Amino acid sequence: MKDFFNVVSIETILGFRNRFHVTPPESVDLSACTGRVLARDVAADIDIPGFSRATMDGYAVQGASTFGSSESNPAYLEVIGAVAMGEVPTVPVGAGQAVRISTGGMLPPGADSVVMIEHAEAVESDLIEVYKSVAPGQHVIGQGEDVAFGQIVLTAGTILRPQEAGLLAALGQRRIPVYGRPRVGIISTGDEVVPVEATPRAGQIRDINATTLAGQVAHCGGRPQLFGIVQDHLETLRGVCRDALASNDMVLISGGSSVGTRDYTIEALESMPGGSILAHGVSISPGKPTILAAADGKPVWGLPGHAASAMVVFHVLVRPFVAHMGGMATRAPEVPRVHARLSRNIASQQGRVDFVRVQLEMGDEELWAHPVLGKSGLISTMVKADGLLRIEAHTEGLDGGTTVAVELLSPVMG
Amino acid sequence: MKDFFNVVSIETILGFRNRFHVTPPESVDLSACTGRVLARDVAADIDIPGFSRATMDGYAVQGASTFGSSESNPAYLEVIGAVAMGEVPTVPVGAGQAVRISTGGMLPPGADSVVMIEHAEAVESDLIEVYKSVAPGQHVIGQGEDVAFGQIVLTAGTILRPQEAGLLAALGQRRIPVYGRPRVGIISTGDEVVPVEATPRAGQIRDINATTLAGQVAHCGGRPQLFGIVQDHLETLRGVCRDALASNDMVLISGGSSVGTRDYTIEALESMPGGSILAHGVSISPGKPTILAAADGKPVWGLPGHAASAMVVFHVLVRPFVAHMGGMATRAPEVPRVHARLSRNIASQQGRVDFVRVQLEMGDEELWAHPVLGKSGLISTMVKADGLLRIEAHTEGLDGGTTVAVELLSPVMG
Repeated sequence: MKDFFNVVSIETILGFRNRFHVTPPESVDLSACTGRVLARDVAADIDIPGFSRATMDGYAVQGASTFGSSESNPAYLEVIGAVAMGEVPTVPVGAGQAVRISTGGMLPPGADSVVMIEHAEAVESDLIEVYKSVAPGQHVIGQGEDVAFGQIVLTAGTILRPQEAGLLAALGQRRIPVYGRPRVGIISTGDEVVPVEATPRAGQIRDINATTLAGQVAHCGGRPQLFGIVQDHLETLRGVCRDALASNDMVLISGGSSVGTRDYTIEALESMPGGSILAHGVSISPGKPTILAAADGKPVWGLPGHAASAMVVFHVLVRPFVAHMGGMATRAPEVPRVHARLSRNIASQQGRVDFVRVQLEMGDEELWAHPVLGKSGLISTMVKADGLLRIEAHTEGLDGGTTVAVELLSPVMG
Repeated sequence: MKDFFNVVSIETILGFRNRFHVTPPESVDLSACTGRVLARDVAADIDIPGFSRATMDGYAVQGASTFGSSESNPAYLEVIGAVAMGEVPTVPVGAGQAVRISTGGMLPPGADSVVMIEHAEAVESDLIEVYKSVAPGQHVIGQGEDVAFGQIVLTAGTILRPQEAGLLAALGQRRIPVYGRPRVGIISTGDEVVPVEATPRAGQIRDINATTLAGQVAHCGGRPQLFGIVQDHLETLRGVCRDALASNDMVLISGGSSVGTRDYTIEALESMPGGSILAHGVSISPGKPTILAAADGKPVWGLPGHAASAMVVFHVLVRPFVAHMGGMATRAPEVPRVHARLSRNIASQQGRVDFVRVQLEMGDEELWAHPVLGKSGLISTMVKADGLLRIEAHTEGLDGGTTVAVELLSPVMG
């Protein structure tokens, strides 16, 4: 009994993503679309804006009427009217003429630019002095300058931020086609694990993983559904697993991947319809005993029972599957990274990728990354951590003082 | 009419935060607490774990029984039983003895460490060879090693991530005290602005700001409430503003801060109970004509009508107010920044802080920041942008090739 696992690389695991389907699209109200993933390309069916608009308060003019004007040599323009906001101005602006206009107003026929109110002064009720010349197009947004009719403005797979939602608003789209949020069933296992509500007796601990994993699922766009705690009993696990698969796109089983209960997990997964083990063991630390199976065409994970290990495995391996199944295009933003200097040496074993929990601290001049000490069973190590530092498999360790990239453990404010 | 604004600095605006109250606490279910802000310090009322646990599958032993053992010179230990998961083992482990134990099992009395199953081999049913010595405490999480009884584990003002929720689960907390999400009323103004549902006639445009600002409010922890579009009419604006204040902790009025309609906005705000203008004009670009007022003890903002300007002002100025009112401690994570190289020169005016929209692109070796060209009225510029580059007031511009810090415009995956 020297080696239990036929470990595979992170890349091998991630390569299995494409075996699994993208969640079918649905439509949501514009007000609920941020954070969702667009399911169709969107083309503009109008110009935005639909007309040339002033971007400053002032006077709509022909730029040529102001050429050469200055403080000492102002141009004199006749004011022939005013543009009412939201209305179509009809009086044309000729050479030497001006029309009062506010920000957002529609340019009258003939006008090509706007003199800022700060650069003009009324000398009579219908006469202004202009102190600064404007070029044609200046202080104007042209018709279609924001978005041109027919242009593909957003592509399927885009995560909708407030600004993308704003663009959809400008196009008059009230119902937005988005990919469904992948439903993820979460099962905890272990005879020693009791629910949050229970008072643990000696030898028992409360279930942490259901809460942490549900939070991570929600944070990366999935919809968690909890299936409680299953005792180490094959038939029970098989039944709950079947239920979880029936109503979800993915299933996470935590605690069943170390020797004690992994055999049940593997046997239960292999007995599911279309069940097969894709990988058992990944060359990462923490998280080596992770299991990936397929059942009913859906990914099923056996995650470590240790609280911090399960979170790291979720972050590194499961999250990209949720993103893929949620329709996120490869162009989707990566996990944000910050650069920081490592505060002390870290040893690392070659042949596996290590994920080190680090705490970030702003020093006088730069950001420092302090490795968080503590075993991977300790949830407190994840609470102390602001991010994860990845040490590649070919590396023996990192020296203190090295500048490293740290993946932030969100949520973050934006 | 040369200058309209008595501009103040970003820092002056942010200093006004402390005039406004933090939203009262409420309690939410553990399953809904991630992303919320903890309203009370939390102390551990138990040790976690409540007993010493194995972190590996193997044999619970006295470490001293294995000292000096190796492949060529194994230690021989008598197996006197097994620990059942979740149960309290009663048979003590003496020198030269071992008890089978699984990950998470409770250490029997007398045992101080665990020999990994990989480092032992059964030679008879009740006798094992051990090939590697273990130190006392090895492969064990001690009682209270994760969290010790009485320890303050989380402090008020902490944003709850999945790991903090997991810690609260371990403590058996089902109802979590969090600050209320600040309610933010959103009013759009302008005679040229029509609802998303409407088909704009010539001279009209659809309301973008209500959608973008609501998305930004939600993303930084607030609860947006839309009050529609108000025409440029003092009494109407005053009435809607009064309604918005009555049911919200903060109000945003977009479009009313340039010359055309700002007088109405200012007059309406000054006429509110306890209404006073705190600032009119901020030394930033875009966003100079921003108004900050207090009314009824709540902040009321006059934001630019230009879509990109309003978003930038929200990000830079309004967001910290929402965070403050939402109870986020100063220790709260900052907006994530990435370092990138600027792809070309940018000019900047001294005396104001410029926020340049940039698109990020991963080159062969490093990340590049490309400034997004386009006027601040164009929502498409924000759609193209991955982040904002801040150019300080004392700077005349930045040279292409400079390494710069870019604030990411979220949402981001975590």
